[in-house]
Amino acid sequence: MLALAACLCAGHARAEDGYELWLRYHPLPAAAAAAYRNQAGQLIVGKATSTQAATRSELLRGLGGLLGTPPPLSAEVTRDGAIVAGTPSSSALIASLHLDTRDLGSEGYLVRSMRVNGHAATVIAGNTDIGVLYGAFRFLRLLQIGRPAGTLDLRDTPRMQLRVLDHWDDLDRHVERGYAGQSLWNWWTLPDDLDPRYTDYARANASIGINGSVLNNVNADPLILTHRYLLKVAALAGVFRAWGIRAYLSVPFDAPVRLGGLKTADPLDPAVRGWWRDKADEIYRLIPDFGGFLVKAHSEGQSGPQDYGRTHADGANMLAAALAPHGGVVMWRAFVYANRPGEDRVKQAWDEFKPLDGKFAANVLLQVKNGPLDFQPREPFNPLFGAMPKTPLMMELQITKEYLGFATNLVYLGPLFKEALAADTMAHGKGSTVARVIEGRRDGHAPSGIAGVANTGSERDWCGSDFNQANWYAFGRLAWDPQQSARAIADDWVRMTFSNDPGFVGPVVDMMMASREAAVDYMTPLGLAHQMGAGSHYGPAPWDHSLPRADWNPTYYNRADARGIGFDRTATGSDAVAQYAPPLARCLADLACVPDAYLLWFHHVPWTYRMRSGATLWQALVEHYTRGLDAVQTMRASWRGLQGHVDAERQLKAAAFLAIQQREAQWWRDASIAYWQSLNSLPLPPGYAPPAHPLRYYESLTFPDAPGQSR
Amino acid sequence: MLALAACLCAGHARAEDGYELWLRYHPLPAAAAAAYRNQAGQLIVGKATSTQAATRSELLRGLGGLLGTPPPLSAEVTRDGAIVAGTPSSSALIASLHLDTRDLGSEGYLVRSMRVNGHAATVIAGNTDIGVLYGAFRFLRLLQIGRPAGTLDLRDTPRMQLRVLDHWDDLDRHVERGYAGQSLWNWWTLPDDLDPRYTDYARANASIGINGSVLNNVNADPLILTHRYLLKVAALAGVFRAWGIRAYLSVPFDAPVRLGGLKTADPLDPAVRGWWRDKADEIYRLIPDFGGFLVKAHSEGQSGPQDYGRTHADGANMLAAALAPHGGVVMWRAFVYANRPGEDRVKQAWDEFKPLDGKFAANVLLQVKNGPLDFQPREPFNPLFGAMPKTPLMMELQITKEYLGFATNLVYLGPLFKEALAADTMAHGKGSTVARVIEGRRDGHAPSGIAGVANTGSERDWCGSDFNQANWYAFGRLAWDPQQSARAIADDWVRMTFSNDPGFVGPVVDMMMASREAAVDYMTPLGLAHQMGAGSHYGPAPWDHSLPRADWNPTYYNRADARGIGFDRTATGSDAVAQYAPPLARCLADLACVPDAYLLWFHHVPWTYRMRSGATLWQALVEHYTRGLDAVQTMRASWRGLQGHVDAERQLKAAAFLAIQQREAQWWRDASIAYWQSLNSLPLPPGYAPPAHPLRYYESLTFPDAPGQSR
Repeated sequence: MLALAACLCAGHARAEDGYELWLRYHPLPAAAAAAYRNQAGQLIVGKATSTQAATRSELLRGLGGLLGTPPPLSAEVTRDGAIVAGTPSSSALIASLHLDTRDLGSEGYLVRSMRVNGHAATVIAGNTDIGVLYGAFRFLRLLQIGRPAGTLDLRDTPRMQLRVLDHWDDLDRHVERGYAGQSLWNWWTLPDDLDPRYTDYARANASIGINGSVLNNVNADPLILTHRYLLKVAALAGVFRAWGIRAYLSVPFDAPVRLGGLKTADPLDPAVRGWWRDKADEIYRLIPDFGGFLVKAHSEGQSGPQDYGRTHADGANMLAAALAPHGGVVMWRAFVYANRPGEDRVKQAWDEFKPLDGKFAANVLLQVKNGPLDFQPREPFNPLFGAMPKTPLMMELQITKEYLGFATNLVYLGPLFKEALAADTMAHGKGSTVARVIEGRRDGHAPSGIAGVANTGSERDWCGSDFNQANWYAFGRLAWDPQQSARAIADDWVRMTFSNDPGFVGPVVDMMMASREAAVDYMTPLGLAHQMGAGSHYGPAPWDHSLPRADWNPTYYNRADARGIGFDRTATGSDAVAQYAPPLARCLADLACVPDAYLLWFHHVPWTYRMRSGATLWQALVEHYTRGLDAVQTMRASWRGLQGHVDAERQLKAAAFLAIQQREAQWWRDASIAYWQSLNSLPLPPGYAPPAHPLRYYESLTFPDAPGQSR
Repeated sequence: MLALAACLCAGHARAEDGYELWLRYHPLPAAAAAAYRNQAGQLIVGKATSTQAATRSELLRGLGGLLGTPPPLSAEVTRDGAIVAGTPSSSALIASLHLDTRDLGSEGYLVRSMRVNGHAATVIAGNTDIGVLYGAFRFLRLLQIGRPAGTLDLRDTPRMQLRVLDHWDDLDRHVERGYAGQSLWNWWTLPDDLDPRYTDYARANASIGINGSVLNNVNADPLILTHRYLLKVAALAGVFRAWGIRAYLSVPFDAPVRLGGLKTADPLDPAVRGWWRDKADEIYRLIPDFGGFLVKAHSEGQSGPQDYGRTHADGANMLAAALAPHGGVVMWRAFVYANRPGEDRVKQAWDEFKPLDGKFAANVLLQVKNGPLDFQPREPFNPLFGAMPKTPLMMELQITKEYLGFATNLVYLGPLFKEALAADTMAHGKGSTVARVIEGRRDGHAPSGIAGVANTGSERDWCGSDFNQANWYAFGRLAWDPQQSARAIADDWVRMTFSNDPGFVGPVVDMMMASREAAVDYMTPLGLAHQMGAGSHYGPAPWDHSLPRADWNPTYYNRADARGIGFDRTATGSDAVAQYAPPLARCLADLACVPDAYLLWFHHVPWTYRMRSGATLWQALVEHYTRGLDAVQTMRASWRGLQGHVDAERQLKAAAFLAIQQREAQWWRDASIAYWQSLNSLPLPPGYAPPAHPLRYYESLTFPDAPGQSR
């Protein structure tokens, strides 16, 4: 109360700095608040467990914020408008309602308007405390987005079991491919100091159903497995527990050597197996609900079982055996491309892992990136999906915008995530979507999961921009239910984050929905990929071949010369198409069938190739680049027009970032066109502006200071 | 207003997260507020310049916060209780008062209660807008600390001209010896995005009289001098300008080679001179009030004029010539110790610079650390002070606690800063204090200055802990007037930052005032220095000799063996005492005269040496270590006892940090005693607990993850 009074009178209002995310809970308009108050006149919710206490505090905070004052707590329903939250086993009142909770599983909930003790009430129930917490967040969301709350009958359960954020956070707080400040984890002051932000992180995740957090970079430092660090991990896990979030760790495969002093990390060596078993036991003594390990093995310099002549399955199963007695899982990454030098990089994971299908222990998930390359603005889906029916495949999406302009570009990834999830593998005929594969029901997989590489950091707004928060939000919502639409999720997010003002919501959702295609267009249209500056992944550099590995460079991917452009992945080229199910492979290999969006991914064609539209490829490319730039200009104008609808602080910041994005979109368009012209000597189609600078200008730009680079 | 309403009703009060610093402006108790309202009934202040607008906004914000509502603005005095702020030249009303502002200079102010237009009023006046802004902050401070405001007659001017923060911030936002997150400057999003925090940084500095900011690390990246970065610097300078803060840059001496492509950086080479002249012109075109350059030359791997056979004066004067036409200065660091290998490190700066006295251009200041070593918990003053009467010496203090336990230790540096400033050089007889030397009046120096190595960063609380804010605050207050007492400054800071509650203020000021001596005691008592882990500067490592340069290692400084300990700097040793004025040198060289606090700095003595107290040196050492630990325990208990007097968030954080500090104090005491015992085989004095672990345990501890290390 002291602090609240202070806030009331501070004379200067606190800024809209984005810290509150979509849990903003600012007061609803008076009429809406008055209506809702009739449905929130009393709160009956336990506090016997930490999750119950969290549920109670969130409902008080949310309703108090939205409605002006929180409803009074009560032990029983004594008036209309009560909210009753709990499980049949923790609440005699809930038990007395004889709700059918059988299909809610261990995380589902129902939210139902019904009579309780003769009064109108809203019941939020589940089989577990965490289900009830999810239901409470769902109920609050309804109020935030202005939906009627008087006649509810909602039931929901997650489609996947593990809904996880992967933090590529180094222990010195550098975040690889992070563009939002430092790591959220202040390892130096843990475990003593528990920054309140750790709780807010867990709240935000719980509100969208995320239930796991891999705390450290997949390029893992063995220090994380020292006892000193495990105490810190335990402190974070202790904060997260109430909110249903399990902690996981990335571990280096050679930790027994680097940390344990063993001579080998051979997964079949008894001492190695014993070391990991002891380490797992130590971890579980400190963190009884520890989630498990994420492993990047034999990839980009990381050690792996192949260093000892063993397979990925040998390595994964050895860790799985250490974790199994405690209920932990191994998330083993399929992101490898070191095995067969000279082979098309995008083929290598399939080559390496498909033969191992059926060889993994029951508590191993293979974590597969959405596409076969690396989180490009657009890629075809990874052909491993559908190809390993005996192995639980966990999808890895990237929320941080490593290849999409970093924090300053407005690119809503909902459509990208949806495209990846909805892609049809045709592995079992039409409708075998990637989402169905990872949900695992058809193949009867017990663990199922999806991971997102987090975009969070120490910046006040968490994600480096307000709009980047939408990508965190959309990931969580889609991880819970991949069938939801990207637009509906954006609509919810805008309402929760900014306002229900229809003059604002519509235009902003339109901006967001157009933003990803705009980025594809101005960066890498028509199936191009990896044209960013080598290493930094910042800005256009289609000419770049500076890095030692061919397949780290843009020229490897564009294969452009005087006559044509694109990567032949048909039978006349690398034959990567053959990794897809036959009917799909046939289409992708066929110029008459392959979608324009993947043309240059699968085919090398002449600049004069005639598109379905009748335009030449060269004309179409120029048109796409220009269209992308135009779309950014449209977004920027649209945002400028919304000035009166949004607080000045967030308005100004997004406007500054859109100015950057417009400059970068222009740069992408102009530099790309200038480079292609230097090869093909073709004139621009009529009506298109030439690049602002000569090619040598674009080639001269260097950005040693580009953020997020790996160390 | 929209945002304020939101704040009122958010349901959850904003946390006391330390962001507001000492400009907290939370509501005063009702009685106090009522009394002040009679002296703040009306506000007359211009807004014709950005500084006037800043003054107006700060008075509205401050009075609005403290008193509940801001006073109405008015063009003239129409009632009692008016506040009139301005300069004679900008305000006809101020001019009509015929105030005597002659001695206020360009930054001074007066705050006076007087009749204006027949009404009781408070007049805040100066010769310049910035003087008025300083006066406004002074007036607000009076209210914050609960002083009577009705009968004021204050006049104040700064004793030094350049009051500067040095940011050791790298361009990738790493802060060397920074323990509060990343750099405040988000170079990647500058100049487009102007984080509101940049303004709050400038406000905080202006409130304590700081008027300059060196934006980047003295280990400087030439990238800072590219046009792309100068645009970013200009954007920050543009934010700072209204608040009287000038931007400065650290520059690498070899920038003409690394950035300009020249073959040499020889300061006498015409092309080099031309390059710097052009660069200065370019900077001043973008930033007309740019402050100048800070240079770390020929020190710890940095290039310098000696690389080309020239002197420090040649180098400094070349840069000075480039800046002089624009009014800029060169701050040339005297922190060098590379010249004479084998020579006592603490002697080398004096050896190198004293012969150059009188050789520097008029716009060069020599920036000299307070002690001759490197920001130790305690050092004697640097003998250069008083030894170079023909050169303006600028003092460099360290606000960040590189050698004092980093951010988590509570060590109030006011007493350390005071000790450094009040030290008597005896260069011109008794009373020639270091403060008098750097004020420069005796020697008639035009530029005078003092710099503090900043402890700020991107952490929400700016400094990594609430109590670290006091060190930033004390630096500014002492830079303005070195005669103020550390206790009085602490008292103001506690009141402004926490509360005027006398049951809180007294105990907390006592804690703060005892904290620095506690740190000296548990870390490096009786004149020991640099006993921290080599490189990291974290934790005790008196045994450490791991680094390649002898004088980077603790053993170099303690010189301990079976018979004794300490560094003989008398004539029988390095004779560093001879660098001090003769009467002082005689005392320091004499065991009968040297203060205990500097005993082992100047003398190597046997463990059995008899102190004035009658105890042996060994007994005294153990007693000091133990006393330091006891003092931390006392601080911790004291803070625990104040629980009801302070908000829970700040209480918990400081309590967590005090727990860390107690652990570390114990570790310092025990590890130091264990190591000395391994050499001297002496028993502990009766009643003193033995170290908790054997020496090998302490020696085995490694902290590759210690924050703030240089790259």
